[in-house]
Amino acid sequence: MSDDATAFVPGHVTGFFSAHPDDDPAVAGSRGAGLTLSHGVSVTVEPAPVTAITLDGEAVEMPPVVGVLRALGVTAAVDAESELPLGAGFGVSGAMALGTALAANAVFACGRSENELITLAHVAEVRAGTGLGDVVAQARGGMPLRIDPGAPRHGYMDGIPARPHIEYVTFGGLSTADIIGGDTSTLTAAGEAALDALAEEPTVERFLAESRQFARDAGLLTDRVETAIADVRDAGGDAAMAMLGETVFAVGTGLSDAGYDTERCRIHPAGSTLDSA
Amino acid sequence: MSDDATAFVPGHVTGFFSAHPDDDPAVAGSRGAGLTLSHGVSVTVEPAPVTAITLDGEAVEMPPVVGVLRALGVTAAVDAESELPLGAGFGVSGAMALGTALAANAVFACGRSENELITLAHVAEVRAGTGLGDVVAQARGGMPLRIDPGAPRHGYMDGIPARPHIEYVTFGGLSTADIIGGDTSTLTAAGEAALDALAEEPTVERFLAESRQFARDAGLLTDRVETAIADVRDAGGDAAMAMLGETVFAVGTGLSDAGYDTERCRIHPAGSTLDSA
Repeated sequence: MSDDATAFVPGHVTGFFSAHPDDDPAVAGSRGAGLTLSHGVSVTVEPAPVTAITLDGEAVEMPPVVGVLRALGVTAAVDAESELPLGAGFGVSGAMALGTALAANAVFACGRSENELITLAHVAEVRAGTGLGDVVAQARGGMPLRIDPGAPRHGYMDGIPARPHIEYVTFGGLSTADIIGGDTSTLTAAGEAALDALAEEPTVERFLAESRQFARDAGLLTDRVETAIADVRDAGGDAAMAMLGETVFAVGTGLSDAGYDTERCRIHPAGSTLDSA
Repeated sequence: MSDDATAFVPGHVTGFFSAHPDDDPAVAGSRGAGLTLSHGVSVTVEPAPVTAITLDGEAVEMPPVVGVLRALGVTAAVDAESELPLGAGFGVSGAMALGTALAANAVFACGRSENELITLAHVAEVRAGTGLGDVVAQARGGMPLRIDPGAPRHGYMDGIPARPHIEYVTFGGLSTADIIGGDTSTLTAAGEAALDALAEEPTVERFLAESRQFARDAGLLTDRVETAIADVRDAGGDAAMAMLGETVFAVGTGLSDAGYDTERCRIHPAGSTLDSA
């Protein structure tokens, strides 16, 4: 048993999705497409008599992390450092759940496989209502296509073979739980149509076009997001909205070319990984 | 269409495996376990009127690469730079096939998904008889467990959640084609037993123990390899043989502690990836 272990989990921005609930949370999930970011969350786990969780030094409630630790039968101090804001469509809660699973398995010598740990984190996130597809995407890295929903033995993923630079800007948050807990029939029809179209032509350009169409069809665009996307398009770039947050992402220098003060990062090639011993 | 594109593919060392031939080369493959290395192969593809392939600046015959280009319907200059020797159990031919698929898809704007490109490379490698499981492992990264054989829609993979440092030493090559083209029944029985045992306890220690047992049971140990593994064990370390080559790998500083002049690298977290544009 080590004293502590740290795992890094990339942020994940979903461009479009459909919701697929199921009584079994390992089978439940989402289909859709997104991109994983070189900006992400580092999660350090250390044994402790009572579980306590911090995010950037502040104590936080984080039910998916509690769920992961309970499933492993351990209590721990979980300290997360995030380059990304919580609640703005970057999958920070999924990253904390998955990073906790990987680091706790190492610290407590739980002997689980990677897919078992991904499944634990996915199940905890689905049960908490904080996400449906971030965990499996964050475990994979790259630009993931979630073809079949669910944790590894159930889900099936593919990817867009491209590694563009990414810019993003956040105006505020949206509640994932409110949206995926409500009526998702319109959203799901739009998401399935987008995935069918992208599977025909799995390119960055098509991903952005289908993501824009989805945000319109699903009625999720806010005024600020719509304006920013239009500004990027007017400046000759390509952008879309992150699900679920008031966040706009662009490839290359799309947002800065349009005059926005943006964060810049890259596609994360690896997906979640334990730091080298 | 870009002028050229480059992909990096990690080396892959198999510790044990079972062979699963099939008339459909996308279904054919191997089960087993191994590790992907931060040492690997960079493959650059540029359009050319006639296909020509070099490895470290020397013209080479490489049927899996030819197969990939044919499947994409293109001709190209393919230039590979390898940190690893060919024919010594590091999956260099698989790396060249997979790197060619990823880079050619980008250069020629073929519009294939990552799984389609992995499948092309796997099929070309199986048809050439140069490997059964390297391509899917190299696409994944980490310490891959090949639970079900074959290309993505058929195969199923898991992984050992650990990222140790690795040392290796090579005494010479073994012919993959001779061994996987011959009677594989003893080898396959030993490989299946090893995978069952490792799935129960997916740890680095168990992987090395099962790999050593496999090399003995399958009758593949050479004298030099057996001596080196014994030397590492005598020095308090842990080592095994790479399938298929006269190569010994160890975790941590196992080989250097035993007095060997070794190469050092890490587990590759990402698997194959296109270089950022």
